[in-house]
Amino acid sequence: MKKQYSFITTLLLTASLAQTQAQNADSVTIKKFFDATLSHGKSYPWLRDLTTNIGGRLAGSANAAKAVQWGKSVLEQEGADKVFLQDVMVPHWERGAKEEAYILNGKQKINVPLLALGGSIATPKKGILAEVIEVKNFQELRALGKEKCEGKIIFFNRPMDPTKISTFEAYGQAGDQRRSGANEASKVGAVGCIIRSLSNTLNDYPHTGSMQYATGVPLIPAGAISTNAAELLSKTLQENPTTKFFFKQNCETLDDAPSHNVVAELKGSEKPDEIIVVGGHLDSWDVAQGAHDDGTGIVQSMEVLRLFKELGIKPKRTIRVVLFMNEENGNRGGIKYAELAKQNNEKHIFALESDNGGFTPRGFGIQGGSPAVLAKIQGYKNLLAPYGLHEIEKGGGGVDIGPLAPQGTVLIGFKPDPQRYFEYHHASNDKFETVNQRELEMGAASMASLIYLLDKYGL
Amino acid sequence: MKKQYSFITTLLLTASLAQTQAQNADSVTIKKFFDATLSHGKSYPWLRDLTTNIGGRLAGSANAAKAVQWGKSVLEQEGADKVFLQDVMVPHWERGAKEEAYILNGKQKINVPLLALGGSIATPKKGILAEVIEVKNFQELRALGKEKCEGKIIFFNRPMDPTKISTFEAYGQAGDQRRSGANEASKVGAVGCIIRSLSNTLNDYPHTGSMQYATGVPLIPAGAISTNAAELLSKTLQENPTTKFFFKQNCETLDDAPSHNVVAELKGSEKPDEIIVVGGHLDSWDVAQGAHDDGTGIVQSMEVLRLFKELGIKPKRTIRVVLFMNEENGNRGGIKYAELAKQNNEKHIFALESDNGGFTPRGFGIQGGSPAVLAKIQGYKNLLAPYGLHEIEKGGGGVDIGPLAPQGTVLIGFKPDPQRYFEYHHASNDKFETVNQRELEMGAASMASLIYLLDKYGL
Repeated sequence: MKKQYSFITTLLLTASLAQTQAQNADSVTIKKFFDATLSHGKSYPWLRDLTTNIGGRLAGSANAAKAVQWGKSVLEQEGADKVFLQDVMVPHWERGAKEEAYILNGKQKINVPLLALGGSIATPKKGILAEVIEVKNFQELRALGKEKCEGKIIFFNRPMDPTKISTFEAYGQAGDQRRSGANEASKVGAVGCIIRSLSNTLNDYPHTGSMQYATGVPLIPAGAISTNAAELLSKTLQENPTTKFFFKQNCETLDDAPSHNVVAELKGSEKPDEIIVVGGHLDSWDVAQGAHDDGTGIVQSMEVLRLFKELGIKPKRTIRVVLFMNEENGNRGGIKYAELAKQNNEKHIFALESDNGGFTPRGFGIQGGSPAVLAKIQGYKNLLAPYGLHEIEKGGGGVDIGPLAPQGTVLIGFKPDPQRYFEYHHASNDKFETVNQRELEMGAASMASLIYLLDKYGL
Repeated sequence: MKKQYSFITTLLLTASLAQTQAQNADSVTIKKFFDATLSHGKSYPWLRDLTTNIGGRLAGSANAAKAVQWGKSVLEQEGADKVFLQDVMVPHWERGAKEEAYILNGKQKINVPLLALGGSIATPKKGILAEVIEVKNFQELRALGKEKCEGKIIFFNRPMDPTKISTFEAYGQAGDQRRSGANEASKVGAVGCIIRSLSNTLNDYPHTGSMQYATGVPLIPAGAISTNAAELLSKTLQENPTTKFFFKQNCETLDDAPSHNVVAELKGSEKPDEIIVVGGHLDSWDVAQGAHDDGTGIVQSMEVLRLFKELGIKPKRTIRVVLFMNEENGNRGGIKYAELAKQNNEKHIFALESDNGGFTPRGFGIQGGSPAVLAKIQGYKNLLAPYGLHEIEKGGGGVDIGPLAPQGTVLIGFKPDPQRYFEYHHASNDKFETVNQRELEMGAASMASLIYLLDKYGL
């Protein structure tokens, strides 16, 4: 009995010692990722280059094409084993000349900032001037019906709920106004649709974003006004319900255009057929530099590859950095990537996306995979918590990697702190200078650390 | 046996049920704090008022006096049971006319941004022009000795270590250059001392901060140049070791001046003699608006009181909001507060300070008290984690509340995310617009939540 006990104890101690040693080795490697990127990382100068030398890069634009060449060239310089482009046809929508908009209260005309929503049609050339019906949601609009709304401009003015700690949840709840507001307005005979920008900050920047027309419903133009303008319009309507609104948009949808995903590979040494993706999206809205959305995700993903190369870490599995095209208005890049993966019988075990801004890291959201996989990743918490990565929870993923889900890929979303994101999202203030270098680099090292653990320990 | 078992089970279940119900009630109250401050809190407009209408408010200045009146008046309006001022004499240092500084490389003169360090003497009226000795630390300086340093300007150029995840740790390690650099330089016969600004961002803002002269060492003037200027000067010295540096400072130390701490009380209903302090410091450096340092701590502390009043929460113990004076260059307010507490036989059980910026909340640092107290506070983690408060650890406190330590007070530092703080600290870019409203408010609600728990459950 005593002998057996001692044997078991020895076994347990040995196992526990081995585990401790592995954890120590991992913690040393993770520290190296952070040290390297915080002292001489390249994500920040890359971001400056992408956002200020190229700038806004909506799918189908000349800038998007430049960004593709830029990403390919940098990844080649950094010594990826292979860099290639995937052809993908993308929607091609152009804003055209700058929008005009004003509130007309009797004879008083007040100009307000407005951006056409992505995918919207133009107004007639002379613009639209009409009375305004303000509503908070579709139910309220339907209750008013054609009688009240025909010939009017519908103004959706439901703010993002400030009490949601997750601003993404608040965004999700307010998003129907932007995505489908024009359709609902059209159904009750409106001639135009404007929405309060999806932002939790009161300021003068309108926030654009994509909308889709429903089939069988007459197309009407849709734009977003700044939150300050929304407050002003609402107040003006309370004082004078016959206040009119004018807007003129010059956008158009052209033929689909050729574009590309950029893919860079580090070939796996032991299980090259098991693929781990890390990526973000290369396109951005036209009016922004696309810094937090999603320049930061792009340069962080590229930095993961650079860190592996610098530290001489040869992954067991194949790691692919993917710069996806067209997340903003079609997700054609994400869909194409998954389609090709299936066609080529590739086995994608994990995909990690960074598309929630370049803010200080909080953790990762895990989507798909068995409870055991979630538990395994949560088991890395003690290695990651010293870097502020406390939140390793179910949920997450990302738009670009989403189409891999049916192939059984475990989808992981990098979670930076969410409080500031919607101050900049889809607006012209989403600029390089709003990104803090250390926060960006902490994110890159966080992602490298997780990719390292996912590669080392697998599913 | 069965009966006894069942009795114990019932007991345990009852205890656990009671605990669960208390936790539920607490979690409801905590949610109310967050909901209220995120939807209609006052910390943000208060901060705008303090930082943009009053602005920089160094102890002894007219602006500091205005800030005292402002704080008193707002806390009275918010319905504190009692608001009073504590007299305190503070150092009175003035910067005088704007500094001038340049690098002189042969005949090439390059102007650089410099700020006198707080407490420094002026240069002679015509300024100081001398050759420069660059060193990284005191050891290196001492090794060079008088022979190399006599008549020169010593340039301390050791950067904050970027690999430290805690920027406060990096700041601590680099801080001797600012605090004591002039003394060490003087000991080897130097005529002036300049330091690389204590910041981890490369830009053109010099960061000031306090320095102290040692007794028995000749006084020489000391200033900080921006990190970009430090890089430039270092590079220039490598190319031309006889490069000179010029600086002119016009600062002076006047007689100590009268000033005040502002104290507002919510009287305890059950144990009014047990006092819980929540505060920050009202003074700031003269060149900054003092937004993150420490306007945010001030308005967050005031919001704690406002939230208790709005939600009708009557504390068991007495809660005191304290706006301390003179943290930046003397801590006379903190010392005076503790002195009066001792004189009046007051029992301070907890003191919570917010003086690490208005960034997204991470947790609290606990200093002093028994291990049981630390464990008790860590036991609140499940209530606080949903708001991103994961880091409840030993360490922390704050300069202003520090002097309460000998009285056995448990000192608690609010810990916001530290990555961005030293981009703004003690520099003219520490402005209102660098504070994100949601981050500020999340901090206020975090503090209110902890104060609520500390009051309810005591030591």
